[in-house]
Amino acid sequence: MYDVMEAIGAHEIVVEAPEHHQNLATLEPHQIEKILFAYRERLTDLEKDKRFQQFLILKNYPGLFNRHPHSHIMAMPVIPRRIDEEISGTLDYFRRKERCIFCDIIKEEISMKKRVVLETVHFLVFSPFASRYPFETWIVPKAHSSDFHHIREEEMEDLSVAIQSLFIRYHKLLSDPPYSLILHTSPVRSPFHRSEYHWHIETRLRIGLREGFEWGTGFFVNPTPPEDASAYLREVE
Amino acid sequence: MYDVMEAIGAHEIVVEAPEHHQNLATLEPHQIEKILFAYRERLTDLEKDKRFQQFLILKNYPGLFNRHPHSHIMAMPVIPRRIDEEISGTLDYFRRKERCIFCDIIKEEISMKKRVVLETVHFLVFSPFASRYPFETWIVPKAHSSDFHHIREEEMEDLSVAIQSLFIRYHKLLSDPPYSLILHTSPVRSPFHRSEYHWHIETRLRIGLREGFEWGTGFFVNPTPPEDASAYLREVE
Repeated sequence: MYDVMEAIGAHEIVVEAPEHHQNLATLEPHQIEKILFAYRERLTDLEKDKRFQQFLILKNYPGLFNRHPHSHIMAMPVIPRRIDEEISGTLDYFRRKERCIFCDIIKEEISMKKRVVLETVHFLVFSPFASRYPFETWIVPKAHSSDFHHIREEEMEDLSVAIQSLFIRYHKLLSDPPYSLILHTSPVRSPFHRSEYHWHIETRLRIGLREGFEWGTGFFVNPTPPEDASAYLREVE
Repeated sequence: MYDVMEAIGAHEIVVEAPEHHQNLATLEPHQIEKILFAYRERLTDLEKDKRFQQFLILKNYPGLFNRHPHSHIMAMPVIPRRIDEEISGTLDYFRRKERCIFCDIIKEEISMKKRVVLETVHFLVFSPFASRYPFETWIVPKAHSSDFHHIREEEMEDLSVAIQSLFIRYHKLLSDPPYSLILHTSPVRSPFHRSEYHWHIETRLRIGLREGFEWGTGFFVNPTPPEDASAYLREVE
């Protein structure tokens, strides 16, 4: 017997700039801030719809069907497998240590420094340990927060600077590489909401894909260790 | 505490033809048969090395670093995550039904016909139910067999015809599309060897990739239902 999932959801497109040629490396922080405002506003509104359990913000650059700068807001009636696995890991760690695993990683990365790309007042941008993809980068709020749409205005201002700085570095270092960006945030509604979870952004460049091995095994070969990737990104002028 | 994995393994390249321009759609069955012979011979030899638990045969077309027609044989000291999940599913089904899930799928697909691409004496070529990727296709031996390298000569002859026929169809229908091919076979050594498992080939075209959503969720959007994909492939002249 299978549960039948209701085929409902929301898929909204955020047009990021009026100009066709713009991207996250060329936009100014105050323009990126407006995109973040739009995300927060839409998620706050979508949360009222009791059918939605999970939000996902994502961006493919360049767009696969439309090259005008845009990103996607998705609202789903179910928690996706990957987010569910992340939450299980987070809860497992919390039960053992009574601490958030993301908060511990942030502390560790800041003290070690070797995988940090940049640090702002409220955010840490770093290459995660055992990165699956070359130049995979995470942007994480330093203060614990499970829900992106509870972000404060000063944090959005700060985040827009962090985003711009990261994407300028990608742009200069790797000649405007194609990438995907996702934002993971806690499921929104009791009993699935998880205050132990820590919202974050992950970016993945679409370069050097091997495909067959990763698909066949579920194992990942990454020719650029995170320590090297973060050093290259740090050193961009 | 983590177990440390021994960093050993084998990675062998099978050069599939002397001619640079050849591929699985242009080779003759008797040439493909020689490739299968090479796989069988190498796996039989590699099995003697007690450190190897798992084999994987894979092919990326076109090759990512070298365009000469070739495929890879990998021997690993550990069972990859994806094969482990497939085996768990197979064992779970076996415990409940005392039958192989692949054998049941084969029977079902042959009786329904609507996802079958082609059938030979020993093999079924079909678009699996709820395919993750457009034109994803599986090639499965109709008689239960857990280990590819126990294949008999007449089966290899038959398989080479099935492979050629599938790749000619891809070639004609989709103008020589890029693809990945993997061959999954049981772990080789007690206590991990699983006679309940059923070796098979999976092919995945590298077209229409969306990336961001699949990566962010672990869910897959496939715009071409397997019933349509198999019909298109069946009808290729």
